[in-house]
Amino acid sequence: MSPDRLSGIYCPVLTPFHEDLRPNADSLIRQCQWLLSQNVGLVVFGTTSEANSLSVEEKIELLDRLVDAGISADRIVPGTGCCAMSDSVKLTRHAVNLGCAGCLMLPPFFYKDVSDDGLFASYVEVIERVGSEKLQIYLYHIPPIAQIGISIDLIERLVTAYPDTVVGIKDSSGDWQNTLAMLQRGWDDFRVFAGSENFLQRVMQNGGAGCISATANINPAAIDRLFAAWQEPKAAEMQEQLDAVRGIIQEYPIIPALKAIVASYSNDAAWKTVRPPLMALDSGRTESLMNALDQLNFAMPGVGKSTSR
Amino acid sequence: MSPDRLSGIYCPVLTPFHEDLRPNADSLIRQCQWLLSQNVGLVVFGTTSEANSLSVEEKIELLDRLVDAGISADRIVPGTGCCAMSDSVKLTRHAVNLGCAGCLMLPPFFYKDVSDDGLFASYVEVIERVGSEKLQIYLYHIPPIAQIGISIDLIERLVTAYPDTVVGIKDSSGDWQNTLAMLQRGWDDFRVFAGSENFLQRVMQNGGAGCISATANINPAAIDRLFAAWQEPKAAEMQEQLDAVRGIIQEYPIIPALKAIVASYSNDAAWKTVRPPLMALDSGRTESLMNALDQLNFAMPGVGKSTSR
Repeated sequence: MSPDRLSGIYCPVLTPFHEDLRPNADSLIRQCQWLLSQNVGLVVFGTTSEANSLSVEEKIELLDRLVDAGISADRIVPGTGCCAMSDSVKLTRHAVNLGCAGCLMLPPFFYKDVSDDGLFASYVEVIERVGSEKLQIYLYHIPPIAQIGISIDLIERLVTAYPDTVVGIKDSSGDWQNTLAMLQRGWDDFRVFAGSENFLQRVMQNGGAGCISATANINPAAIDRLFAAWQEPKAAEMQEQLDAVRGIIQEYPIIPALKAIVASYSNDAAWKTVRPPLMALDSGRTESLMNALDQLNFAMPGVGKSTSR
Repeated sequence: MSPDRLSGIYCPVLTPFHEDLRPNADSLIRQCQWLLSQNVGLVVFGTTSEANSLSVEEKIELLDRLVDAGISADRIVPGTGCCAMSDSVKLTRHAVNLGCAGCLMLPPFFYKDVSDDGLFASYVEVIERVGSEKLQIYLYHIPPIAQIGISIDLIERLVTAYPDTVVGIKDSSGDWQNTLAMLQRGWDDFRVFAGSENFLQRVMQNGGAGCISATANINPAAIDRLFAAWQEPKAAEMQEQLDAVRGIIQEYPIIPALKAIVASYSNDAAWKTVRPPLMALDSGRTESLMNALDQLNFAMPGVGKSTSR
């Protein structure tokens, strides 16, 4: 029996690092437990997680630590798409063996000018080599960063060839017309997640499954409330409030900004640490960010707010 | 004592695969031995090597196999720059421990809109963690594919901070003005390699070190002859002949085209195999490619030409 397909709000979980840039598994476990308490699922190793700054071995160790800490694998959807087929197979297989609810899968993204035939073959190799009925793939379309995108035609081919395995997509194109086109194709029970809560109300109005959004790292409950209430009269106002918070954060490099916010509210400066090529937000920009959020009466629920800033 | 800095012709060696897409170490060893016999050095794990379709473990195993087969590490310059700092450190450390002549190092290439500060920090982390006086880094500037480039200012910062470690660059921008700008900065004994033999005569006329070119997989001796004779009257004509061969190959996807040529001349069809997302050249395009090369009286010296095509 294949696992259930997903819906709701998922968070590409920020990866905390020690000062020496090793991943901090204990801190990640706490963040994941807090996100689950906010009714938000765990997309570890998304773009926001600095997944592509981690080795496969580091990702496998973190996944194991999460499950060992008692976090249910059926709430974890790791990103497992790497440049190298061999890496994608190894990490995906590990996730499936742990019982993860699904895998978010980037296409290989180094080589450019590749064809849909080549991308189709890439997904086929991973699916066939993992060779498990339990594998549920959510495609990851993020052309602004990966440069390599997933066309509607490619989705069609994959869903036709593997209807029980290729079950959904995260659309981080930022292009609502593209998301709408995916929704309107009507593939059987195909789950379309918006890549940002900016599109949450619209994606739900058009038969989508929810969103997988970076901002869920700091604003999970409010995003989840809109997911629950999208058909209610207050939904438009809730969407505006989410957009206002997101709008402020998007004025900064988003990963360092989110880490600065978590560092501030958790009173744990180590959270600011990023791996290069990213750079932590400096103190001046952190202060302007936090001041802007304060003006919206924003707070991270359930996280002790720092008294030191 | 630090190793000598490099000059001459280097080849980003094609990686042969078995039918099941495992790397074929025996075939790679033979290709490397043949390239060395043509006076061409070995940049294994370059772009042309499909390096970013191989895991770090696969690269380490291939490097070990080459050295075990008696290929001198001082003729090997592996590509060791990965997206993840931890991967770059592991592979670079292994190459240094084997005694490799240098490492060709891509910047981390997944995250976009990164700063020179972030890229500088990326190289610093690798250099400091490897922590060896034997490490010699050749930067790898290939913005058309990696998207993330290496600016003149970034080179300046790296050369100033690590004058004995950051010793050269491969410029695959395809932009002669950029190569010239690097040459004219006059960093002490900094080795500028053109990324294609199209620029070989010009790079030598302006104080460059040679070239590291994909086409050296199939035309090594002729490229090396121009390197030896660039000051002679016949050099311009030699450059034109190289450009003619390169021009034909560039009409095709270059990695599959080069593999098709090696497959044809070595009478070993397995050489056509690429890992997805690349796709092998089909038989029609292979035939038109080989016919075009025949019209130039092109041949791969020392490689048995197939009688079956």
